[in-house]
Amino acid sequence: MNILYDERLDGPLPAVDPTLALERLREALPGVTLLHRDEDRRPFECDGLSAYRVMPMLVALPDTIEQVEALLRTCHELGLPVVTRGAGTGLSGGALPLEQGVLLVMSRFNRILQIDPDARIARVQPGVRNLAISEAAAPHGLYFAPDPSSQIACSIGGNVAENAGGVHCLKYGLTVHNVQALEVITIEGERMTLGSEALDTPGFDLLALFNGSEGMLGVITEVTVKLLPRPQSAKVIMASFDDLENAGRAVGDIIAAGIVPGGLEMMDNLAIRAAEDFIHAGYPVEAEAILLCELDGVEADVADDCRRVREVLAAAGATGITLARDDAERARFWAGRKNAFPAVGRLSPDYYCMDGTIPRRELPRVLKGIARLSDESGLRVANVFHAGDGNLHPLILFDANEAGELELAERVGGSILELCVEVGGTITGEHGVGREKINQMCTQFDADEITLFHALKAAFDPRTLLNPGKNIPTLARCAEYGAMHVHNNQLPHPELPRF
Amino acid sequence: MNILYDERLDGPLPAVDPTLALERLREALPGVTLLHRDEDRRPFECDGLSAYRVMPMLVALPDTIEQVEALLRTCHELGLPVVTRGAGTGLSGGALPLEQGVLLVMSRFNRILQIDPDARIARVQPGVRNLAISEAAAPHGLYFAPDPSSQIACSIGGNVAENAGGVHCLKYGLTVHNVQALEVITIEGERMTLGSEALDTPGFDLLALFNGSEGMLGVITEVTVKLLPRPQSAKVIMASFDDLENAGRAVGDIIAAGIVPGGLEMMDNLAIRAAEDFIHAGYPVEAEAILLCELDGVEADVADDCRRVREVLAAAGATGITLARDDAERARFWAGRKNAFPAVGRLSPDYYCMDGTIPRRELPRVLKGIARLSDESGLRVANVFHAGDGNLHPLILFDANEAGELELAERVGGSILELCVEVGGTITGEHGVGREKINQMCTQFDADEITLFHALKAAFDPRTLLNPGKNIPTLARCAEYGAMHVHNNQLPHPELPRF
Repeated sequence: MNILYDERLDGPLPAVDPTLALERLREALPGVTLLHRDEDRRPFECDGLSAYRVMPMLVALPDTIEQVEALLRTCHELGLPVVTRGAGTGLSGGALPLEQGVLLVMSRFNRILQIDPDARIARVQPGVRNLAISEAAAPHGLYFAPDPSSQIACSIGGNVAENAGGVHCLKYGLTVHNVQALEVITIEGERMTLGSEALDTPGFDLLALFNGSEGMLGVITEVTVKLLPRPQSAKVIMASFDDLENAGRAVGDIIAAGIVPGGLEMMDNLAIRAAEDFIHAGYPVEAEAILLCELDGVEADVADDCRRVREVLAAAGATGITLARDDAERARFWAGRKNAFPAVGRLSPDYYCMDGTIPRRELPRVLKGIARLSDESGLRVANVFHAGDGNLHPLILFDANEAGELELAERVGGSILELCVEVGGTITGEHGVGREKINQMCTQFDADEITLFHALKAAFDPRTLLNPGKNIPTLARCAEYGAMHVHNNQLPHPELPRF
Repeated sequence: MNILYDERLDGPLPAVDPTLALERLREALPGVTLLHRDEDRRPFECDGLSAYRVMPMLVALPDTIEQVEALLRTCHELGLPVVTRGAGTGLSGGALPLEQGVLLVMSRFNRILQIDPDARIARVQPGVRNLAISEAAAPHGLYFAPDPSSQIACSIGGNVAENAGGVHCLKYGLTVHNVQALEVITIEGERMTLGSEALDTPGFDLLALFNGSEGMLGVITEVTVKLLPRPQSAKVIMASFDDLENAGRAVGDIIAAGIVPGGLEMMDNLAIRAAEDFIHAGYPVEAEAILLCELDGVEADVADDCRRVREVLAAAGATGITLARDDAERARFWAGRKNAFPAVGRLSPDYYCMDGTIPRRELPRVLKGIARLSDESGLRVANVFHAGDGNLHPLILFDANEAGELELAERVGGSILELCVEVGGTITGEHGVGREKINQMCTQFDADEITLFHALKAAFDPRTLLNPGKNIPTLARCAEYGAMHVHNNQLPHPELPRF
C-alpha cells in the first residue's frame, strides 16, 4: 500500500509455519482466544493509520497477566515476532501487524484497579480508555491531564507506548510526564516494575525509556498515572487573524509574556471552514487563522491572564477577540478543534495527517514552507496545530483513487517533516514514529545514534521479536533512503520542495 | 575508609602504568592541564561525601570540547577508566576518583552561552553553578526551578548526572523535568545531541536516560535547561507540632486537600534546635517537629492557599502556625532549613546524611522505625525532610574516632534505606546512588533488573570505562551483600533493626 516503504529494508523475518505456531500457542495457552480465520483477523489489519494494512498471522486476546507471560515466553521460544496493540487508534502505524507475527491485543485488560486521591494516583490496566481515568477520578476533583483528541477511544497502554500528547500538554506535559510507574513483561516473560510512587528512582530511568518505546522493549500490563486537581476555573479566548504569520507570531508573544496557557491551538482557513461546516462551533469562516487560548487555574489568576492575553493578541494584530461566554460556548469552541480531523476528512476522499514539532519562533517560516509545498504539489493542506508547543498537524488532502496521489501525498508529508528537522524540530510531536515515519528517522538521527538505539533495544530484546520494523530504522534502510541526515540544521540539499 | 564497601566486588580494573598513561595523554592533549603530583591531586580525592577518599591516578582539566573528545578517545584506546567531576559537591560519592583512572574535571566549562527569554531556555556549559543560571535569567523575570541546598556551589552538569532535587521539586519537578537538551560525548569521542527544543523527541528517550546516569554513559558538555516565570508572590507558613507523627500526617493532608505547595519541608526537634542555635531563624525550639510550607503563584491564589493550609494544619493538631511577615522573615525561615546539615554538623564530630524516598502516607511509620533504629544503636538521628515528596534526609550523628562508630552509622543508614524500600519507596531521593548506596541497589532491584542495567550501560560503554564501580552494582556484589531484594514489599527478613 505504501509506495515509499519497502519492508525488505527491515531485514528478513523468521520463517514461521503458521499451523505449527497456532498449535504450539494453543498448547501453551489453554483457554486463550486465538483468532486465525480470515474473517476474524480482518478487523485487526490496521490501526488508526488505515493507509497501511497487513493481515496478522494470528491474533491473541489474553485475559490474564499469566497468559501474557506464557504467550511471550512461547513466542520467545519459537522466535515468533509479537506486535502489541491497545485500542488501535494510533496514527503512525505503531500497531500495524506482521504477516509472520502474533498480534497481542490488550483490550480485555480494561479495569481501573485503584484511585488513590491522597497520593493523587490511579493504577489502571493498559486497556483502560484515556477518558475513563478522568471520569473515575472526577468524584475526587481530580483528572488525568494528557488528552489526545482520540481520548474517548484510545487506551492508556497505547498512550504510554506512543508518549501521546494533546491540547493540555503545553502546560501539563506529555504522557511521560504524567506516568508514575509501569508494570511490564519482557519478551522472556519476566515481570518488572518501573518507577515507583516516589519522585525519583535509582538506576537508569527505565520508566522514561518505556514511554514512547512503541512496544519494542516489553509489554505494558499496568500503568500508574498521576492525577491533577481539576482547575477551579477555565476560560477560552478565540482570536481571528487575516494573516497566518501574524497568528504564528502571536503564539510566541503569549508565551514570551510569561503566560502558560492550559492549551494554545491554531487552525488555518481551510481547517476553520471544514470544522465550522461540520460542528457549527461559531468560528469566523473568513479568517485566515484562529487561535484558541485556554487559561485555567484559580478564578482571579484566570481573569488576570485573560486580560493580558487580550492585550497581547490585540498588539499582534488580531482582527477579532472573543471570550467564550460560558462553559457551553467553551465546549463548542473546543469541539470544533477536537473534530478538525474528521471535519477535514469531509473535504476530500483521503487525507494524510502529519505530526512534526518545531521551535515556536519558526512557526511563520514553516507555514510559508508548507504553503509552497502545497502550491507546487497541487495538493491542498489544512493546518491544525498545538501551536503553543510547536506541534504541527498538517492534513494533506488527496484522492487515493487518482493514480500517483497517495505517493505524492506521502512525498509532501516527508518534505514537511524534513522541513521540521531543518529548523531544529523533530519528526514527531505526539503520534510516534511507528511505521509511518521510519524513513524520516534517518533524517533525524545519524548512523551512530541509530546504532545506539539498536543496542538499547538489544538490551531488552536481543532477538528483535518485539514490534520489529517500527520506530528505529535499520542502517540498511537509512543507506537506501539516502544520506538525509541534518548537520548543523542544514539538510544536505536544503532547496525545497524535495518531493 | 568505608568498612562495608569492598571494591574487589566491582571486578578487576585494568592494570595501567601511570607513567605511560601520563606520557600518552600528554602527547594526545598538548596544552591541557594534567595533574600528577601528590599535592596537586590531593584536593580531588573526594567529593561532598568526604568519608570516602581515593587519590586519582591523574587529574585532567581541559578547556575545550575538542580536548574532552581527544581525552576520551585516548582513554578509550588505552583502556583507561574515566571519572567525570563537576564542582564536587555530590553527597553519594558519584565523583569519587579511581586509583587506576583519570579524573576529568569540567570546572573550566563555566560559561552561560545563551538565555532565550522567548523560548524560556538557557543554554549553559556543564560547569556553570546552579544558582548562576537563575541569576542570569533574573533580568527576564525567569529562573531555574531545581534548587539543591548546595545551589551556590554545585554545577549543572553534576545536577544532571545525579538528577538533583531541592525544596521546589515538589511542585516543579527534579532536574530531569527541567532539562530540555544535552550535548554529550561518548567514551569513543563522538558528540551527540539528546533532546531538542521540542516537547517530544522521537526514538528512545536518551535525554531522560542521561539524567541520573552518574557519568556512566557519556560526558555532558552542554545543558539546555527550561526557565520558569518567577512567581508573582511567595509566602511561607511555619507550623509547630508536639508530636512527630501528627506533623507527618499533616503533610499528607495538605496534598490531599488539592494544594500543591512550592515547597513542603519538615524538621524534627534535634534538627530544629541545631538550626536555631546556628542560624537564629526564629524556630520554636520546644516543638517536636515543624513544617515549612511555601505557597507561590499569583497574589490572590497564594492568599487563598494560605487560608486553606492554615485550616488543614489546625485540624491536624498544629500547636502554632506562623505566616512569615515579609520576605526577610521568609528568607530566615528558609535559611534555617537550608543550613540544617551544617547546623547538625555542629552537634557531633561526624554525621552521615541519608537520602531515601517513601510514599507520603508511610511518613509516620518510617519515622517510628528510624526512632527505633536510633534507640537501639545509641546513635542520635536528626530528621530533615522534603516531606511533600516523601524525600527523607536522616542525619546520623557519630564520632569517627570512636572505634566502630562509623561502621555502626553505615549500618544504621543501610537499615533506614532498606526500610524505605520495604514501604514501597526508594534508596535515593536526589543525591544519587554513587558509591555510597551501591550495596542498597541490591535491595532495590533483582538480578534480572541489574543485568538489564548492565546491558544498557554496555550499549553506551561496552568496555565499562566510564565511572566503573558506581551506581549499578555487579551481580557478584549483590551475591556477597546477600539476597536482600524485596518482593511484594517484604524484605526476606523484615524484622528491624538489621544492623
